[in-house]
Amino acid sequence: MSSEEKLQAIRTRIDALDEELQALINERASLAQEVARVKLADGEEALFYRPEREAQVLRRVKERNQGPLPAEEVARLFREVMSACLALEQPMQIAFLGPEGTFSQEAVLKHFGHSALTLPMAAIDEVFREVEAGSANYGVVPVENSTEGAINHTLDLLLKTPLKICGEVELRIHDHLMTQVDSLAEIKCVYSHAQSLAQCREWLDAHLAGVERVSVSSNAEAARLARDEAGAAAIAGYSAAELYDLKILESNIEDDPNNTTRFFILGRDDVPASGKDKTALLVSTKNKPGALSQLLEPLARHGISMTRIESRPSRKGVWEYVFFVEIEGHQDEEQVASALGALEREAAMYKILGSFPRAVL
Amino acid sequence: MSSEEKLQAIRTRIDALDEELQALINERASLAQEVARVKLADGEEALFYRPEREAQVLRRVKERNQGPLPAEEVARLFREVMSACLALEQPMQIAFLGPEGTFSQEAVLKHFGHSALTLPMAAIDEVFREVEAGSANYGVVPVENSTEGAINHTLDLLLKTPLKICGEVELRIHDHLMTQVDSLAEIKCVYSHAQSLAQCREWLDAHLAGVERVSVSSNAEAARLARDEAGAAAIAGYSAAELYDLKILESNIEDDPNNTTRFFILGRDDVPASGKDKTALLVSTKNKPGALSQLLEPLARHGISMTRIESRPSRKGVWEYVFFVEIEGHQDEEQVASALGALEREAAMYKILGSFPRAVL
Repeated sequence: MSSEEKLQAIRTRIDALDEELQALINERASLAQEVARVKLADGEEALFYRPEREAQVLRRVKERNQGPLPAEEVARLFREVMSACLALEQPMQIAFLGPEGTFSQEAVLKHFGHSALTLPMAAIDEVFREVEAGSANYGVVPVENSTEGAINHTLDLLLKTPLKICGEVELRIHDHLMTQVDSLAEIKCVYSHAQSLAQCREWLDAHLAGVERVSVSSNAEAARLARDEAGAAAIAGYSAAELYDLKILESNIEDDPNNTTRFFILGRDDVPASGKDKTALLVSTKNKPGALSQLLEPLARHGISMTRIESRPSRKGVWEYVFFVEIEGHQDEEQVASALGALEREAAMYKILGSFPRAVL
Repeated sequence: MSSEEKLQAIRTRIDALDEELQALINERASLAQEVARVKLADGEEALFYRPEREAQVLRRVKERNQGPLPAEEVARLFREVMSACLALEQPMQIAFLGPEGTFSQEAVLKHFGHSALTLPMAAIDEVFREVEAGSANYGVVPVENSTEGAINHTLDLLLKTPLKICGEVELRIHDHLMTQVDSLAEIKCVYSHAQSLAQCREWLDAHLAGVERVSVSSNAEAARLARDEAGAAAIAGYSAAELYDLKILESNIEDDPNNTTRFFILGRDDVPASGKDKTALLVSTKNKPGALSQLLEPLARHGISMTRIESRPSRKGVWEYVFFVEIEGHQDEEQVASALGALEREAAMYKILGSFPRAVL
């Protein structure tokens, strides 16, 4: 067989396989429609989107994957298939911190797939309000990033909202060197937020050794300085380059390729356990010596690991703090429930923000 | 059976189907790897991405689709499957007019799927240069949009480039009403480009009847005025609202939901016929009466329909023009080749920019 004949034979097999693939995808959509019919016949307000079920499906896809496609890639394809099937029943409306083209929108699409409708909001509190009012099915808000740490505004809003955290998404974030000059040799000074400078230290040592590094209040401020000062450069994200009309001389210069921002999915309902979950809560105690370790002691005693803790001023009294705590496990699991019960008895204020599946993608 | 049992039964079927689906997707990837091996064994510089073959696969997917998923949606899923399979052999690097988050990037992902690597460039000519130099496999550039008409800079660059047009992408574009005031009642004046004002005329008549409309040079200029003048609003895209810190009071106010921007895919190689193609060319003639209709006469005589014509000053002499022409059909098809041959004999300048599959998605 000539190469051309061999190629033709493989292509014929691919075409046959594609037909089968298409039939299966549509069959899956029919089954999703059946699920919807059973739920609607039940009379109750039907929840078509089940975060815990999606997480389980995606986990199984990753576990059983034999290749040659990477597990991440196949899981991404399944996310899109589920997204398309769901849209057939209930086009999901997802509020996020706009405008379009931001990392928040990328997080929405990564979590809900490209069949979801994205609703850009002007501020984080509007995302909360839109979901609270029922105008959006879910909201997506940033909660922490490696450059700026916790997004305090989101933590403060979580204190007051009746919404539940239904999921988390993690996104890679990149740093870029931007300036008005044409080459690295012309750069006399690099501005950025201290954390971005630290994140790009190795790159700076290798490519701009001896050039002054100045830390400023934000990456946007750094970009403004790079526009206004001759020979200055900034480390910041793309939007800053656009805003201040700077050239990106070098892309993705962060030393740690795992530089990420984390987002929460907010909804109106509690999510059942998926088997691999986290629980987020807010607790407070008087700021007296030992109060915090005493408060958290039940977690250790029940063998529950705490993945994160952040303190926020409570705004109610001097020296009072609210702690944002994340632990492993679901609030319906026995161990977790006992630990939380004990913690609640110790706490001045106690609010469960939700149990949700750990990020799969 | 209770509803819960029914749901459980359907979910078990979905799980079984998902396993089959995953096996098929990976089998498709293996076949794609086989194609790559045959091509590499052939010794020649292997082209893994075949625009005409992709267009054919997607067209068949749309034609044979029985639902319940819409044909567009299934085709989108197949695009992603092909994108993932291709990335396994050759991760595609696609240059586009940055920054990230622009319509151009959206066009890249729509055409190449989310497994492609996107390379943001600071200007359209850099997109051309990056592909010409071989640093990117393909480039994506805007060629016309309903708001601003032809992108003249792209047409001018096509005149000089050795690159070929390998495909086209169409994207929906939305208009928004943005301002600093809090309600429609407070708006005294609406600024925008004349074409955007025209595109939103019905919406303006219905919601802002009697409010003055002022056309300005660009939508960005309109947004700047809306920031600086009390009671002013602008019609523009999201990025303008971000740039000038305006609130979006109303989204998607364009009367025609088909408001689109069209992009060309630029590559280094000619694309074989896919069965439903277009051909783009540049021709020039002296600006004497009847010259243009005489030049184009061979097209009509051979029954070739012209889908688009734009004139551009040639920059070589007063009253000389270059015409950008698009016709239906592929340059390798007999009828098209005869018509183009006749046209070439009439033309002062003649350059085929490429034959490419008509947009499928």
